[in-house]
Amino acid sequence: MGEVPIGAVIVKDGVVIAEAHNSPRTDHDPTAHAEILAIRRAAQALGDERLTGCELWVTLEPCAMCAGAIAHARINRLYYAASDPKGGAVEHGARVFEQPQALHRPEVYTGIGEAESADLLRGFFRTRR
Amino acid sequence: MGEVPIGAVIVKDGVVIAEAHNSPRTDHDPTAHAEILAIRRAAQALGDERLTGCELWVTLEPCAMCAGAIAHARINRLYYAASDPKGGAVEHGARVFEQPQALHRPEVYTGIGEAESADLLRGFFRTRR
Repeated sequence: MGEVPIGAVIVKDGVVIAEAHNSPRTDHDPTAHAEILAIRRAAQALGDERLTGCELWVTLEPCAMCAGAIAHARINRLYYAASDPKGGAVEHGARVFEQPQALHRPEVYTGIGEAESADLLRGFFRTRR
Repeated sequence: MGEVPIGAVIVKDGVVIAEAHNSPRTDHDPTAHAEILAIRRAAQALGDERLTGCELWVTLEPCAMCAGAIAHARINRLYYAASDPKGGAVEHGARVFEQPQALHRPEVYTGIGEAESADLLRGFFRTRR
């Protein structure tokens, strides 16, 4: 599809309630990152703008936009595979959840499936160059 | 409507191409800030995920989520009225555009209509308490 291969799922009580992949080009939507789409779908599914008690699992360290959305959605736990020194905003750059004004801070777990996710992303960028 | 009264418009070549108001509660969508909705609508209108040559005008200093979206959308100029020490991420907190990794930095103009916008927001919160 020509999109950077990033996927996200949202889990509540052990059940996947939303899943999405990154699709800004296909959708003509610069906000269509996997995390944003999954959050929007989960909120629709629950009929609530707050995803209290939910986990978000994603391939890559979220950017500032997605980290902000995770805070707004009150996601309880964030799991991501590969860290992203270039665009990540959890452990890099804007460090959204570490700001004194962060209105919500999820628990953050990193490195699960990191090698596979990093390989997937590297493979994609290799074919594009 | 019970939503925090924030509005955004996107202008290209002197013409408003998208407008939106903040509506996370109504939409059951934690990402439904005025800026995100306006960016999504403008990108749909242009059929392009990049809003090159566009200006975004908004009532309040954007949060980290919205500042990130503004960078992804390649908005050229950002105008906002009231600054937001509690939730803003342009001149406060995450300072998204000041990060070395920021992939795009709009020109930023602040304080236009600041008193009216601050009054509007204060009036809203006064009636809610």
